[in-house]
Amino acid sequence: MADLSLPQYADIEKAHRRIGSYVRRTPVLTSSYFNRLTGGELFFKCENFQKVGAFKFRGACNAVMSLLKSEGEKGIITHSSGNHAQAVALAARMNGYQATIVMPENAPKVKVNAVREYGAEIVFCESTIQARDETAQKIIAETGATFIHPYNHPAVISGQGTAAKELLEEHPDLDIIMAPVGGGGLISGTAITAKHLNPKTRVIGAEPERADDAYRSFHSGKIEPVLRTDTVADGLRTSLGELTFQVIHTHLDDIVTVSEESIIRDMRAVWERMKIIIEPSCSVPLSAILDKKVDVMGKKVGIILTGGNVDLENLPW
Amino acid sequence: MADLSLPQYADIEKAHRRIGSYVRRTPVLTSSYFNRLTGGELFFKCENFQKVGAFKFRGACNAVMSLLKSEGEKGIITHSSGNHAQAVALAARMNGYQATIVMPENAPKVKVNAVREYGAEIVFCESTIQARDETAQKIIAETGATFIHPYNHPAVISGQGTAAKELLEEHPDLDIIMAPVGGGGLISGTAITAKHLNPKTRVIGAEPERADDAYRSFHSGKIEPVLRTDTVADGLRTSLGELTFQVIHTHLDDIVTVSEESIIRDMRAVWERMKIIIEPSCSVPLSAILDKKVDVMGKKVGIILTGGNVDLENLPW
Repeated sequence: MADLSLPQYADIEKAHRRIGSYVRRTPVLTSSYFNRLTGGELFFKCENFQKVGAFKFRGACNAVMSLLKSEGEKGIITHSSGNHAQAVALAARMNGYQATIVMPENAPKVKVNAVREYGAEIVFCESTIQARDETAQKIIAETGATFIHPYNHPAVISGQGTAAKELLEEHPDLDIIMAPVGGGGLISGTAITAKHLNPKTRVIGAEPERADDAYRSFHSGKIEPVLRTDTVADGLRTSLGELTFQVIHTHLDDIVTVSEESIIRDMRAVWERMKIIIEPSCSVPLSAILDKKVDVMGKKVGIILTGGNVDLENLPW
Repeated sequence: MADLSLPQYADIEKAHRRIGSYVRRTPVLTSSYFNRLTGGELFFKCENFQKVGAFKFRGACNAVMSLLKSEGEKGIITHSSGNHAQAVALAARMNGYQATIVMPENAPKVKVNAVREYGAEIVFCESTIQARDETAQKIIAETGATFIHPYNHPAVISGQGTAAKELLEEHPDLDIIMAPVGGGGLISGTAITAKHLNPKTRVIGAEPERADDAYRSFHSGKIEPVLRTDTVADGLRTSLGELTFQVIHTHLDDIVTVSEESIIRDMRAVWERMKIIIEPSCSVPLSAILDKKVDVMGKKVGIILTGGNVDLENLPW
């Protein structure tokens, strides 16, 4: 049975030892263009180069590898149509387990195929939260498979924290570390890591104005409902969970929001200037800096680039 | 006055010491997807992350920094509408010299602006080889500026060789090293480096079928004229020079050619799988491998990715 208490830094260290040879140690890139533009020194941790093209593989891998063999052999299950689905599928396959991914029947074919490529079984359901929960619960009841939540899960949070651990090992003196906030798994793991390794590092989350539940929750001190999710940053449409809210509430220094226009502008600027492919979600922290929501003048700033899975036929500019 | 003899490995070492703190030491990426697909172990040297977005900065920087101060102060001149123009402009500015770039009056505005951003003066001329030569010669006669050829220039070749030097320092046991062939500066520097550091490393050039002058020159043993240049790989439309032909003739193990379809297919595959932005020219060596023109089964293969300057409004798929 999974431990549902809040992860500590020791859990992130343990996760890193566990998954270290399975995940890619992604490079940290810099850009003289963005340094000049912002007056800071920016360090981009390239999780767009991670396996399955997103940081999500770290958390999924840690969650799968934390299972007892007897648990894993009953199968792994999750519901997602995004990067977490691919991450769980690959992590399960690498450990010799069967993964089942519950997907809405209207999921894009390209995402369905990606999950299938990693050897997972796909079960389609109606495109409602209730339908996917019920479908997953039914399979769990039948098979005893273990459900891996995309973010509200201690082992997932610990796995995501290994990205910041690697970044801070290479650049221990960051003044600020930033990541986007969707369900909050990444920023939670990042905050636990940063506050342990260097308590002076400010941890700041960034969110689209059009999916600002974490921003509102952080500032009100309680979990606020999602009001709208019509943002181009498709990785950030989810709302916080109990665990991630607790970490955010305890450890974050700030959460700021940015406009759709800025997200698209800066996604494109990263493509053009840094020659790397990032998802819209990635540019949210950078937009916060470029729009002066975060002052980085003279500061060293780590930014976790979350993923690079985009549809090249359907670019937002 | 520039030395016009063939560069040796000692010149590449000297170049690296000279430009080392000016150029970016670009990362070497790997891809489990392409390894699985090819049966080899591929190491991609990411010169798309180089300053100005292309390896060209290495050669231009070395050529500019090889000048006496009294020469540099009379100015630097070249004609190019591509990456070499930006490279010379930036290298000149970093050394406090004035650069003049002769460009055809129909050069794309985006390229003109990029060169201007680096502080170079632009002189427009008619879009013929004769006009740009005459324009450059006129300015040289008036100012005493030094002309820096994009590839048929020993210091440029030596500068380009530093990319392979860095790659082989990190991966000394490559069985094969590959680069695309345009004017031949990069493959020449690569070959001189590789054959010195590890004579067992096979050096293979790759060219588009639609701009195959180096392929024909290599196989006939004399410089063959360019017959057509209508390839999507816009960096590879130039023909060999005397110096680069000599190096290629002496040091290369093979030159192979690939189709337009393969170039576009594999450019896109690199974007999708490796999440990096590469120019069409970059994928030419990879296409040669994927189309089985080069056998890499069980081999370690270095590939120099040459640049990442593409027009995002005008993608070839």
